[in-house]
Amino acid sequence: MSDRVVLAYSGGLDTSVAIGWIAEETGAEVVAVAVDVGQGGEDLETIRKRALACGAVDAVVADARDEFAEQYCLPAMRANALYMDRYPLVSALSRPLIVKHLVKAAKYHNATAVAHGCTGKGNDQVRFEVGIGALAPDLKVIAPVRDYAWTREKAIAWAERRDLPIDVNKKSPYSIDQNVWGRAVETGFLEDIWNAPIEDVYSYTADPAVPRDRDEVVVTFDKGVPVAIDGETVTPLQAIQELNRRAGAQGVGRLDMVEDRLVGIKSREIYEAPGAIALITAHQELESVTVERDLARFKRQVEQRWSELVYDGLWFSPLKDALDAFVDRTQEHVSGEIRMVLHGGRAVVTGRRSERSLYDFNLATYDEGDTFDQSLAKGFVQLWGLPSKIAAKRDQQHGA
Amino acid sequence: MSDRVVLAYSGGLDTSVAIGWIAEETGAEVVAVAVDVGQGGEDLETIRKRALACGAVDAVVADARDEFAEQYCLPAMRANALYMDRYPLVSALSRPLIVKHLVKAAKYHNATAVAHGCTGKGNDQVRFEVGIGALAPDLKVIAPVRDYAWTREKAIAWAERRDLPIDVNKKSPYSIDQNVWGRAVETGFLEDIWNAPIEDVYSYTADPAVPRDRDEVVVTFDKGVPVAIDGETVTPLQAIQELNRRAGAQGVGRLDMVEDRLVGIKSREIYEAPGAIALITAHQELESVTVERDLARFKRQVEQRWSELVYDGLWFSPLKDALDAFVDRTQEHVSGEIRMVLHGGRAVVTGRRSERSLYDFNLATYDEGDTFDQSLAKGFVQLWGLPSKIAAKRDQQHGA
Amino acid sequence: MSDRVVLAYSGGLDTSVAIGWIAEETGAEVVAVAVDVGQGGEDLETIRKRALACGAVDAVVADARDEFAEQYCLPAMRANALYMDRYPLVSALSRPLIVKHLVKAAKYHNATAVAHGCTGKGNDQVRFEVGIGALAPDLKVIAPVRDYAWTREKAIAWAERRDLPIDVNKKSPYSIDQNVWGRAVETGFLEDIWNAPIEDVYSYTADPAVPRDRDEVVVTFDKGVPVAIDGETVTPLQAIQELNRRAGAQGVGRLDMVEDRLVGIKSREIYEAPGAIALITAHQELESVTVERDLARFKRQVEQRWSELVYDGLWFSPLKDALDAFVDRTQEHVSGEIRMVLHGGRAVVTGRRSERSLYDFNLATYDEGDTFDQSLAKGFVQLWGLPSKIAAKRDQQHGA
Amino acid sequence: MSDRVVLAYSGGLDTSVAIGWIAEETGAEVVAVAVDVGQGGEDLETIRKRALACGAVDAVVADARDEFAEQYCLPAMRANALYMDRYPLVSALSRPLIVKHLVKAAKYHNATAVAHGCTGKGNDQVRFEVGIGALAPDLKVIAPVRDYAWTREKAIAWAERRDLPIDVNKKSPYSIDQNVWGRAVETGFLEDIWNAPIEDVYSYTADPAVPRDRDEVVVTFDKGVPVAIDGETVTPLQAIQELNRRAGAQGVGRLDMVEDRLVGIKSREIYEAPGAIALITAHQELESVTVERDLARFKRQVEQRWSELVYDGLWFSPLKDALDAFVDRTQEHVSGEIRMVLHGGRAVVTGRRSERSLYDFNLATYDEGDTFDQSLAKGFVQLWGLPSKIAAKRDQQHGA
Repeated sequence: MSDRVVLAYSGGLDTSVAIGWIAEETGAEVVAVAVDVGQGGEDLETIRKRALACGAVDAVVADARDEFAEQYCLPAMRANALYMDRYPLVSALSRPLIVKHLVKAAKYHNATAVAHGCTGKGNDQVRFEVGIGALAPDLKVIAPVRDYAWTREKAIAWAERRDLPIDVNKKSPYSIDQNVWGRAVETGFLEDIWNAPIEDVYSYTADPAVPRDRDEVVVTFDKGVPVAIDGETVTPLQAIQELNRRAGAQGVGRLDMVEDRLVGIKSREIYEAPGAIALITAHQELESVTVERDLARFKRQVEQRWSELVYDGLWFSPLKDALDAFVDRTQEHVSGEIRMVLHGGRAVVTGRRSERSLYDFNLATYDEGDTFDQSLAKGFVQLWGLPSKIAAKRDQQHGA
Repeated sequence: MSDRVVLAYSGGLDTSVAIGWIAEETGAEVVAVAVDVGQGGEDLETIRKRALACGAVDAVVADARDEFAEQYCLPAMRANALYMDRYPLVSALSRPLIVKHLVKAAKYHNATAVAHGCTGKGNDQVRFEVGIGALAPDLKVIAPVRDYAWTREKAIAWAERRDLPIDVNKKSPYSIDQNVWGRAVETGFLEDIWNAPIEDVYSYTADPAVPRDRDEVVVTFDKGVPVAIDGETVTPLQAIQELNRRAGAQGVGRLDMVEDRLVGIKSREIYEAPGAIALITAHQELESVTVERDLARFKRQVEQRWSELVYDGLWFSPLKDALDAFVDRTQEHVSGEIRMVLHGGRAVVTGRRSERSLYDFNLATYDEGDTFDQSLAKGFVQLWGLPSKIAAKRDQQHGA
Repeated sequence: MSDRVVLAYSGGLDTSVAIGWIAEETGAEVVAVAVDVGQGGEDLETIRKRALACGAVDAVVADARDEFAEQYCLPAMRANALYMDRYPLVSALSRPLIVKHLVKAAKYHNATAVAHGCTGKGNDQVRFEVGIGALAPDLKVIAPVRDYAWTREKAIAWAERRDLPIDVNKKSPYSIDQNVWGRAVETGFLEDIWNAPIEDVYSYTADPAVPRDRDEVVVTFDKGVPVAIDGETVTPLQAIQELNRRAGAQGVGRLDMVEDRLVGIKSREIYEAPGAIALITAHQELESVTVERDLARFKRQVEQRWSELVYDGLWFSPLKDALDAFVDRTQEHVSGEIRMVLHGGRAVVTGRRSERSLYDFNLATYDEGDTFDQSLAKGFVQLWGLPSKIAAKRDQQHGA
Repeated sequence: MSDRVVLAYSGGLDTSVAIGWIAEETGAEVVAVAVDVGQGGEDLETIRKRALACGAVDAVVADARDEFAEQYCLPAMRANALYMDRYPLVSALSRPLIVKHLVKAAKYHNATAVAHGCTGKGNDQVRFEVGIGALAPDLKVIAPVRDYAWTREKAIAWAERRDLPIDVNKKSPYSIDQNVWGRAVETGFLEDIWNAPIEDVYSYTADPAVPRDRDEVVVTFDKGVPVAIDGETVTPLQAIQELNRRAGAQGVGRLDMVEDRLVGIKSREIYEAPGAIALITAHQELESVTVERDLARFKRQVEQRWSELVYDGLWFSPLKDALDAFVDRTQEHVSGEIRMVLHGGRAVVTGRRSERSLYDFNLATYDEGDTFDQSLAKGFVQLWGLPSKIAAKRDQQHGA
């Protein structure tokens, strides 16, 4: 049997051309693998057929949308994962899932290598290769775009020479990655960071500046999992899809940022993630009500590290695992309802309700029913401030 | 000479009554001190006269608005200080400044004690007393509301009995604290955390849902200090005031949250901070462009700790000082311009421009002019993932 | 039935006197509870009888040594818990266990309060009361020494007046707390922090300066649990006891430090913890071999926070629980053998052996068999340093 | 003028051979630079002459011992820098200093490249190249051992062929790097991590197991700088040298560890750092006495990050700078005396004395003179434990 290579296949120009090119270069048979993570666009069967038409010995397509929602998006939401306090890790979450499917196919087909179409200056090459290294340390990796300097022009020439069934004229000015958790856009004119994005850039979200009626939504969580929207039971995937639709219709979840890539450069990125931002907003608020103060303070550090790790391609790493164990423990009581108004680009919480609430009306109220014993405060304040008081006395004696 | 007590005086019912009560209880002369931190309302001269009319032996009023903006709000903005990732520390910032003026007056008047009107379940008692302990460890503290269980009813009775020049009928349903950095509101019906705030609660911000034209603003920073707005030079105080006006007119900066108080309870708080939120948004973005990745990552931890410390009343503490030294060093290159659109409750950055930018078009671009050497990436990716690859191999051998 | 109070009983003067005093003051019946955490000294039956002789309506004694070793000392060792990088939390670990037994007895006896003999300036009052608050929030707490200013002199007078069966002349100059994890000593002359401890202070450890033969020991761990010593299977309790004996005989584990108490003051403390220090030393080394780098780096932060929390009386807290979940996950592969030489006050690791080792001879060696691909390094180094290089270029242009 | 290359020259086989090899390969003139960081061995003049004899067009030698002590070792001591809680960063500290001298020489000689003799699997290549990238981003780097796979055998053959004045038979079984802050040793038989080091490995320290008299030393610090030993004024360099001598004579400062290298592998390392360990021990203790609790707790995190950064080659980085600003601020009051006993491989603090002490005898004592107000404790304890008490109540209601 010939050697086999499993290729992460999108159906687009670059990876369609890669099928034949890899076969020629390596003498191996190429198996194309396409994974549905909710990116929309062409149906998987069309993509599968194109792969075969381009010379793949086999083509595997997988509907991994529920898996993606449950095992990748949900953990991110529970970690309130926002890289640089803003980016909900859209592409960073789908890469390890795609890697899992590539490795599965590689084992099934006894492949010796995996190929991807990433460039050498982005984060995704790291996410693919580090993921493959973790799940199948013996698989080789082929990265034609990076290691053989493929360009769009070369790819078009190749496709035309081989008469591949690809419309090489369908050129979008945008470089796009999308899945159910969000959408990332890069494009030439935004590489000047003084330029504002134009409305044409967006697809998941309507223009927030257009006047329209507000939309009120209630999200129910059970132990950190969204289980109902406006009282109707949903799966995690449905929760994200429904909020993509409703929050997207209100222009929620647009991001425009300058981002620190793992490879050491800063880049301009536009994101849309209406469902992700709405869910994280609701989840954070429910945590404010149900998670104890010291735990909440430390969890912020864990969330930051979790986000950095996943952004940096270390989904399959021992630290990520241990941080997950921490986060899982924190979600035990994150159950209840959050009411939000979606409107004008904002998801604003207006109410919270939980049987697991740590908010105690009787301790908090300044009206009748107050049970807080104010006489305890004096001693608390004195000892709380004692270390800085002693230090201040010392400093004053020594003229600091 | 009699003993003297310096009282933090607001001009309101509680502290007006406290003047006479403290005098009676302690036999001391009371000196009232009122500090203008941009809270608006009555003018200081009116307040000063009322203090005297209520029996103060002396009354001191200080316009500390520039001092507050420069020495308290600015460091907070440079630390992007948002307690629980949201609250810009409005009251927490003014307390140490007021303490400073109280202690100054106490020294001038040879006072032996300082008095404040805080309750025993809030944060402000801590901020006052820990601050006083740090600046003047030998001063005693008198807290009538907390330690002698004063209530509004008792205060009214006392005021009427002594015929004090206070309108005891002027009762707002809201408990409010405001200064130039923002405004905090508590009120009975919001103690049910399922209830949404009503429009009447707000005063610094217009309703963001009302359709209106957007406002575009350019903020110029020099080493982390806002120095111009739309090209016109401003002081820090003017920058905050101008953005309060313009961002407030667009409904920017409303917050509705459940917050972890230092005394161990959760409380519901409504805030408005249009200028603060607009400035922090612009400042964070300029940092994204001008601050190196590792520094930015660590600074987030410093920012969180800074915010917790200041919230928790430890403004005058050795750790706060050392964190300030860190933050100061990070601001050396935070110079440039940020363009924002203020509209519909949102402050959205649309452009950044800086001579100190670390964003390098030639490294970032995917178009012509690309100078990034993609051949370096392969080695980087391999060694970056090596520890988790070795661990994964081990785990697979041992069935983890 | 009368009210009942459960008293944490040590058998010593203070708590013996407290039995009768609490009964008189409160009219309640007193139930004495003594817990064996390996403190040595009198046997539990003697202590039990003394409690009854002093007026307790019932006296409960519990051998909790295995429970202490397994559920308190082991988690501390797995967290390499050293407060201020040095103190292995001797007393801080036993308090929550004692609290558990007090609460159990309180429930059994339908008691309404729990009493302890701690002073108001130490950490143990916090550990007792916060622990009781967590396990039985409705129980009241009585702290005679703190809240009624009991002194040794008063206690002796009371004991003599009531003719209690206590030798009031048996006065040690030392204030001691000990258990199987270690021993804490305070005493008057050491309150001058320039004074060195004298040999008489120590009891768990021999003088390390006396010449003697070294002792070599091999500790075997399974998933972070010490399971054998020199090849012989041990329970956690036996592991600690055996290493207390052998490391103690070599003078290992003496500590002399100035410590930050939770109540805001610094205090001088002498500790001995031969077994704890030997076990933590071995465990840390095995982690160096079996735990991945990023995980090890973050675990240090978790360890510090874990130690602070437990020192600060927050054993029963949500954050402690979640940190334990993190630590547990890290121990999955901490299996193997550590060889140490115990000698002259030092426990020095001389060998490590583990099937779960991440140390890879072939990657590490500079001799034949080297499998590390050095050609990867160049790209790694370049991209690793790229952010600081870009920043340096910028700084040089702007004269920083 | 020909191109010039500046070579980091040690005087040994590899770099002596590199002079001629680089000249041949590149056609450039080679300038050799040797830096004295207290490594001992041959004198600099001998080394300088050898470089010239091997073909260098110029040879520069610099006595940088004071610079190294003051600007590299001291900041490390002030940060209590111990990578993985143990390794005082011996080699990691000298690399950036050597880089500084290389870059200085490169500018003087108008060189276009810098060369070093590091392999591709160690940390030093990173430290050299990242440092050069930061100080002189335009200089190229030549790394013959790594990029051209030089081996000892090749080097000997080359040296013999060219008749270079090097004793190629002088082969130590040890690979050694040393400077005044310590000494690092690697060798074949220690690559089996179960093997113990033998006495022959050590050179800075005597065998701690040999009985000898103890040595008592008093170190005086002024704002975190060691300024006197036993009352005699010293420079930082003298302080380190003197403690190397005295602590080394007692066997203090030996380390045997498995270490996480930046390039992703674990390696076995033996270190000796008697002066460094003695100084850090004393400095930590003085900080315990003079640094406030919250500051001390946060400083531990800063210390860990500082150590990781410097280990990882990021001495010249924006984060390192900002952490230094933090550390500098913490040292303001770190003044006083520490008495230590050096004996049997241990440096044990026995006394501390400081005018800036935060240890307050009157607050700490349990004897007469106690000024601590124990009545404050009750309120403190109650509010301190309130969050976990509320959480525990909730958990019990919900069966957690």
